Amino acid sequence: MSMKDLTPTRRQLLSAIGTSAGSVAAMQAMVALGHAAESQFTGPPTLSGARKGETVLVLGAGLAGLVAAYELTKAGYKVQVLEFQGRPGGRNWSLRGGDTYTEVGGAVQKVQFQPGNYLNPGPWRIPHHHKTLLHYCREFGVALEPFIQMNHNSYVHQTDAFDGKPMRYKEVATDFKGHVAELLSKAINVGSLDDKVSGEDKERLLEAMRAWGALDKDMAYASSLKVSGQRGYDRAPGGGVEGAPTPSQISSLSDVLDSKVWNQMGFFFNYVMQTTMFQPVGGMDMIGKAFARHVDHLITYNAKVVQIDQSATGVAVTYQDTASGATATAKADWCVCCIPATILGQIPMQVNDAMKASLKAVNYSASVKTGLEFKRRFWEEDESIYGGHSFTNQPISLISYPNYHYFKSGPAVLLGSNAGGLGGSLLAGMEPAARLEAILAQGEIIHPQYRQEFMNGVSVAWARVPWNMGGNSRWSDDARKQHYQNMVAMDGRIVLAGEHASYIGGWMEGALTSSIDAITRLHQRAQEA
Amino acid sequence: MSMKDLTPTRRQLLSAIGTSAGSVAAMQAMVALGHAAESQFTGPPTLSGARKGETVLVLGAGLAGLVAAYELTKAGYKVQVLEFQGRPGGRNWSLRGGDTYTEVGGAVQKVQFQPGNYLNPGPWRIPHHHKTLLHYCREFGVALEPFIQMNHNSYVHQTDAFDGKPMRYKEVATDFKGHVAELLSKAINVGSLDDKVSGEDKERLLEAMRAWGALDKDMAYASSLKVSGQRGYDRAPGGGVEGAPTPSQISSLSDVLDSKVWNQMGFFFNYVMQTTMFQPVGGMDMIGKAFARHVDHLITYNAKVVQIDQSATGVAVTYQDTASGATATAKADWCVCCIPATILGQIPMQVNDAMKASLKAVNYSASVKTGLEFKRRFWEEDESIYGGHSFTNQPISLISYPNYHYFKSGPAVLLGSNAGGLGGSLLAGMEPAARLEAILAQGEIIHPQYRQEFMNGVSVAWARVPWNMGGNSRWSDDARKQHYQNMVAMDGRIVLAGEHASYIGGWMEGALTSSIDAITRLHQRAQEA
Repeated sequence: MSMKDLTPTRRQLLSAIGTSAGSVAAMQAMVALGHAAESQFTGPPTLSGARKGETVLVLGAGLAGLVAAYELTKAGYKVQVLEFQGRPGGRNWSLRGGDTYTEVGGAVQKVQFQPGNYLNPGPWRIPHHHKTLLHYCREFGVALEPFIQMNHNSYVHQTDAFDGKPMRYKEVATDFKGHVAELLSKAINVGSLDDKVSGEDKERLLEAMRAWGALDKDMAYASSLKVSGQRGYDRAPGGGVEGAPTPSQISSLSDVLDSKVWNQMGFFFNYVMQTTMFQPVGGMDMIGKAFARHVDHLITYNAKVVQIDQSATGVAVTYQDTASGATATAKADWCVCCIPATILGQIPMQVNDAMKASLKAVNYSASVKTGLEFKRRFWEEDESIYGGHSFTNQPISLISYPNYHYFKSGPAVLLGSNAGGLGGSLLAGMEPAARLEAILAQGEIIHPQYRQEFMNGVSVAWARVPWNMGGNSRWSDDARKQHYQNMVAMDGRIVLAGEHASYIGGWMEGALTSSIDAITRLHQRAQEA
Repeated sequence: MSMKDLTPTRRQLLSAIGTSAGSVAAMQAMVALGHAAESQFTGPPTLSGARKGETVLVLGAGLAGLVAAYELTKAGYKVQVLEFQGRPGGRNWSLRGGDTYTEVGGAVQKVQFQPGNYLNPGPWRIPHHHKTLLHYCREFGVALEPFIQMNHNSYVHQTDAFDGKPMRYKEVATDFKGHVAELLSKAINVGSLDDKVSGEDKERLLEAMRAWGALDKDMAYASSLKVSGQRGYDRAPGGGVEGAPTPSQISSLSDVLDSKVWNQMGFFFNYVMQTTMFQPVGGMDMIGKAFARHVDHLITYNAKVVQIDQSATGVAVTYQDTASGATATAKADWCVCCIPATILGQIPMQVNDAMKASLKAVNYSASVKTGLEFKRRFWEEDESIYGGHSFTNQPISLISYPNYHYFKSGPAVLLGSNAGGLGGSLLAGMEPAARLEAILAQGEIIHPQYRQEFMNGVSVAWARVPWNMGGNSRWSDDARKQHYQNMVAMDGRIVLAGEHASYIGGWMEGALTSSIDAITRLHQRAQEA
């Protein structure tokens, strides 16, 4: 505990601040007290002194492009945005009843959800520390509501565990920590860790194991009302004459190991998955739409970029109108290119080879996400599951329950798959109808009510999304080392942005922080030019 | 895994149900698959065949009394309710700006909160498995919103840990499981658990420890980007050129043991504390008010019960109008008495000695809850804490952040204390102004912004609440064994109800299930009489 010798005490610091401290002093105190910043975000970019009439071409109206257009316009630049699709937002996207989605291969899905129900095929949850995104939600008045990430009452399912029966997370997680605590206590008590743990710490660690593991007086993990007070009862406590509960039976260590529940226990500890998380009220695309309210007049929709050129004095981008097929060329002093690497890598672009190589170096993952509409919220009504995820080792990977309109009667949409890896590829290879059938067949293993209650569904296989051809970037450590700085370095009058040009790949925060960094450097370059 | 031999496989069961299964069959399947019911609640009571004109006197318009009045009236009984206070709900209670609260001792607090802000002095969160309560919320259209119970980003604070510095839960909880995983791995690898764990399970357990503990390739828990991906970074990941994160430094086992973080880790596993939890939109008293919309005309307010008599043919309850001092006697065929044991034990009542003894046998805990209004949501704006609790070993016990109006500008109210035990008694012994000062002094150790941002506060010490004289029941195992059935057994024409007459003490669900059991038995008795 050497830090005690090196730093003033908390009380000394607080005393030094005094009662007259303003909030700046209080914030400095927070830092002095060693609370690390959770985000590099310190506010929107301050781009002062832009030359009047200087022009910027932004390619792509996803979140990276939208924030670039918004902030550059505010700074005084004249901005034009070219967007392939007929709507803003890019992967910030929601599907609702009446929408039509055509995937690569030509299969068309018409969404049949009831009004108010939706699927977010792309991003679907916002970590509390994604401060850039939260800043713009606040600035634009995008209403947010909690996204239930962790639900002790949802299921964990492994086809080869518990005879294929889904277990409640609380059951197996309680049993996991109970067995771990019992085993570590035994190891301590036979002295096998004496060289690792001091005598005093041994006693404290045993106390910790007893409390955390819900062990009995003999330091054993055993079925009891105390343990049932965590993993659930056979008969729950009630009121009146028959109110007494009865305990449930714990699972053996070997059965718990079958369940691989530590994967979920670790998942919930993932920095970007930790509580509290949020979602926009009404669908994720509320964010893209909110940006578009400010920059929509700058966007040319249905514009497919086919060539990107630059000279010492400016950029020229050729694009095709996706309806008429007519081509045109847009010119500007500078270009912020926010097209995904999967697509951009196929477009002739006048940049250095290292930047081009970086576009090939970054991998993309491509999940299959499916919205299933059911006649009623059986997961709430029958199983007391409100939001959160059930996990399975089947290709669907999880079932995630809606975090809005809890307790409501009538049809509701859940996320029936978030399938990555091989399973995702298999599902992506199917026609939508067969894909849906496979997803229902896997889901009913967890919820027997599936077939009885199913109404309709829509699936988005990101590998087949025409305008993205993949889900989101996944840099390997090696590729990152070799190529990342080549991707983000400005080349002449062109700078790249997007979640692929960040260390927060796959998150909207990555797109925004990447874009803000890119336009900040572009602005500096423009002032030097 | 002997269960595999004894039970049909999941697939066999599902196949047996067939695709034509209705939801009753599906529910039976759920039970057959071994999913224990989470609640004894199977629907509201069915009290058919009540004799026309039969009368019931309900004492107390808390939730137990309200549900009794509501269901008995629906069943055909003629009900009168006597309530000490001028409002329905009892401990189902919210304080808002303009309210006045006078505690025992005479101190008056006038609540100064801004419109929309409130304190729930009594119950404040609803577990997802409290199905009776959720049933009535749904029946009455009480809107519910998530109560954020678990927040990885809030603080854990021990005055003698980390030099008194509050740590983020994610930091110490990640370090705790990392050290536990490393130690258990070492014990396994030196063979000290060979008699407890089979060879195959040893390998699987090591794999589990590596994943769950975020151990490195040498099975050590060490500072790294991987570990920072759980406990947080020194510099968080960002976008563009400077996007690379830097790792944070882990804490030593000894420091983590100082923090006693396993108490919080265990708390979150508590059956009644597990996610998902809810709260009514606008304040907890929305529930009492919803009941009152149906039974308000049956309630005599400001009626202090002073004597309870019964004969072979009916009950007679004498009460005093708290304004005028005038007494009156209400008569009925039956009585459901929902007055808290603390108060009821002091009222002359014509029941058997064993029932009277039971009222003395049950203990009550009495916390001190405090609502503090601040000028702004500094916990959200400065510290990215949205809902959830920070825990401390100071008397305040916790700081809990509001689960409504996230991101809103302007004043907000947090829960500044939920102080039980000795600390709670000390705070309850103070005058409200001194109590508030003590609570601020403790809270500013965790949030240095407290003094700068504080506006006003109100505290409720349950030991001083005139109509309850204590918080909620806490049965010891011995007292439960000796006295509980004597309390709940109907005596002649009187039956007791309330959270104290349940195995769900301190929860609204206990009050409701107790009351439903009581009126069901009363109804049976009435039909036999």
